[in-house]
Amino acid sequence: MAERNYIFDTIRSVFRSFGYSQIETPAMENLSTLLGKYGEEGDKLLFRILNSGDAFAGVDESKPLVSQICEKGLRYDLTVPFARYVVQHRDEISFPFKRFQMQPVWRADRPQKGRYREFYQCDVDVIGSKSQLCELELVQIVDEVYRRLGINVLVKINNRKVLSGLAEICGAPDKVVDITVAIDKLDKIGLDAVKAEMLEKGLSAEAVALLEPVLTLSGSNAEKIAVMRGLMSSSEIGLKGLDELEELFGFIADAGISTPCEIDLSLARGLNYYTGAIFEVKALDWEIGSISGGGRYDNLTGIFGLADMSGVGISFGADRIYDVLKGLDKFPAGLGSASRLLFANMGETAYVLPIASALRAAGASVEIYPDVSKLKKQFDYADRKGIPFLSVCGETEAASGQVQIKNLATGEQVSFSKDDLPGILAFIGEN
Amino acid sequence: MAERNYIFDTIRSVFRSFGYSQIETPAMENLSTLLGKYGEEGDKLLFRILNSGDAFAGVDESKPLVSQICEKGLRYDLTVPFARYVVQHRDEISFPFKRFQMQPVWRADRPQKGRYREFYQCDVDVIGSKSQLCELELVQIVDEVYRRLGINVLVKINNRKVLSGLAEICGAPDKVVDITVAIDKLDKIGLDAVKAEMLEKGLSAEAVALLEPVLTLSGSNAEKIAVMRGLMSSSEIGLKGLDELEELFGFIADAGISTPCEIDLSLARGLNYYTGAIFEVKALDWEIGSISGGGRYDNLTGIFGLADMSGVGISFGADRIYDVLKGLDKFPAGLGSASRLLFANMGETAYVLPIASALRAAGASVEIYPDVSKLKKQFDYADRKGIPFLSVCGETEAASGQVQIKNLATGEQVSFSKDDLPGILAFIGEN
Repeated sequence: MAERNYIFDTIRSVFRSFGYSQIETPAMENLSTLLGKYGEEGDKLLFRILNSGDAFAGVDESKPLVSQICEKGLRYDLTVPFARYVVQHRDEISFPFKRFQMQPVWRADRPQKGRYREFYQCDVDVIGSKSQLCELELVQIVDEVYRRLGINVLVKINNRKVLSGLAEICGAPDKVVDITVAIDKLDKIGLDAVKAEMLEKGLSAEAVALLEPVLTLSGSNAEKIAVMRGLMSSSEIGLKGLDELEELFGFIADAGISTPCEIDLSLARGLNYYTGAIFEVKALDWEIGSISGGGRYDNLTGIFGLADMSGVGISFGADRIYDVLKGLDKFPAGLGSASRLLFANMGETAYVLPIASALRAAGASVEIYPDVSKLKKQFDYADRKGIPFLSVCGETEAASGQVQIKNLATGEQVSFSKDDLPGILAFIGEN
Repeated sequence: MAERNYIFDTIRSVFRSFGYSQIETPAMENLSTLLGKYGEEGDKLLFRILNSGDAFAGVDESKPLVSQICEKGLRYDLTVPFARYVVQHRDEISFPFKRFQMQPVWRADRPQKGRYREFYQCDVDVIGSKSQLCELELVQIVDEVYRRLGINVLVKINNRKVLSGLAEICGAPDKVVDITVAIDKLDKIGLDAVKAEMLEKGLSAEAVALLEPVLTLSGSNAEKIAVMRGLMSSSEIGLKGLDELEELFGFIADAGISTPCEIDLSLARGLNYYTGAIFEVKALDWEIGSISGGGRYDNLTGIFGLADMSGVGISFGADRIYDVLKGLDKFPAGLGSASRLLFANMGETAYVLPIASALRAAGASVEIYPDVSKLKKQFDYADRKGIPFLSVCGETEAASGQVQIKNLATGEQVSFSKDDLPGILAFIGEN
């Protein structure tokens, strides 16, 4: 929980520094909003909520029961509720609307290791502008979030229009997915096998020959764009995609982003709904799937009756980010321990209480053991809670106005005057 | 949302300074955990979740359907899931266990003004110690939370054992509630009417005469305790309650709490399950019900098979705190606006991007309007989002290395060198 708060607090403060506002939507949505948005499999994974009151009153037994007794379901992701929210509040929202959302979602998956029925998603989107500055902003956010978290990443960028352009010049506009999948296999199976697979999928020999320069694309992002521009001069949509990529990389250079960003034509995530940029973020020093991803969608709110509302968003995978930080040992020390200092309880409450209050007022996290128990038990409590400093103030200390503090890790013990708050704060590392 | 975050962030940081850890429990609990814990009315208000898969497979139609097709429900409060959590994790938890929880709960109430089907609760508890230092800590937390929020409050304190003692000396141990209700009416209906009501409820004339000094109790907390001590010398439980009250007020004095705390025997909240201290917090400058409340319960986890686990907790009413802050106009200015400064987009992106990045790196919230739109539209955007400063950097500024910034509230406009970050930060109030 402390670790998740650390990740979310970091992400949240970056989002805010770019002017994004946090919103929350209710856990329950109408099933009519949710059904049909996640495919057949997704519909099965929706949690349905029994209508309150007598759910079975007036049920027509000759018709399917479930849709009669359940009107609401738990949200399955943050995207569909966001689209519903934008459409519903269209008149109050100032567009471009920059929002983020960090809330749990629910899926009726069989519980298994690493897969939970309730888990958090963390989405940031800007909706209502087609400017590539929005794409840039998401790349800037990724750059800053992972810089603050101490994770080295690579941002892979693709563009759906470029993929459409490639399919178009191959004379196979319906084969976008096949082409992307084939490109994706290049590293694993090699050029010849990829070409064979493309032929197998029904691409012509001319088309495969045309695509060869794309398959073997190398060099800088600008060089890659130049090669493709030569190839795609006949495809309007392809050229539009290349313009977008070029503008975005220009902005990335202008903004001085230090995270490496590269064009990767094999990026196919969300190919069904993304219409422009596609992003994926990989951790460089830890083997794991993508830790963030997203893209531009031109028609998110269309299904709810608000057309022509282009947006672009990215999602941070909190669970995977947790795994990377854990694996690389990059969580700041002491996150888990709620307090820095435990005052053992020797019965000298009147002496200890004001000292503890003064330390808290100075910003320290301090607790007093509630019971006058054996010292061993109080030590154990500090140890199990990971409280790094312990103070035992008995009659002697109370009489002399002293505070003994022990660093439980090193065993170092120092005596302070009870009024020497700066000294105590420095010793327990809360200055 | 920004306002709620402000309230929760404030409360959270106080909780942490006393060594409380945040936990979260899943939204869904087994209905067997929830049912029967909130009375008959509560059971009706539980949201039930349809079993996933084919919920109707194997259903025995001769038996009640709902319990066969729904095994889970949404949590109704934070207390019962917390008790379940403590019992389930008893072997991993270090007692005394100091935890807080800020999560939504769901109730199938008919939606109406001020009553939502999903709302947040914010509970802090320490479980596994009978020390009155735990009660003190909650009073300290209340004191500090409302000091930080700028709300003047009164903490009312009662003790269930004292009420039991009063009923005992009246020879009517079953009339605790009647006595408390009568005391509560004193201000409204006067002494004689209260005495008449007590007789009506079946108390003897001797009992009512005995209670009269309690009804007219006045003076300091110590004086009130002294009067009751004289009265209750024959009631063991009553004396125990007075000892607890006396110890708590001693600690309150030792800790130097400035918030007024007073004994109020009419406090009856949660009389069914509280066994010791009972708390209620009233806002002094705003007419509203209690904004925090809680007490000690000796048997919270008993229903789940873990006996003799005494705890004490308090709940912060986020919605009412919101109302008080709103009513007293005590929210800090600028909470709602995500950014301090908007750079209008005049197409000089290469010039503006690094300046915006530098300001963000210095801690400011800054955004750039994504589209090169009419200035009026960009102004309106800043206005509607409550962004207080606007910068228009066109060709002239880019050529001269200047940044013009306008305070949208005062109209004041100042020109800075683009490298004068401290000057810009001070002007937009982010230094």
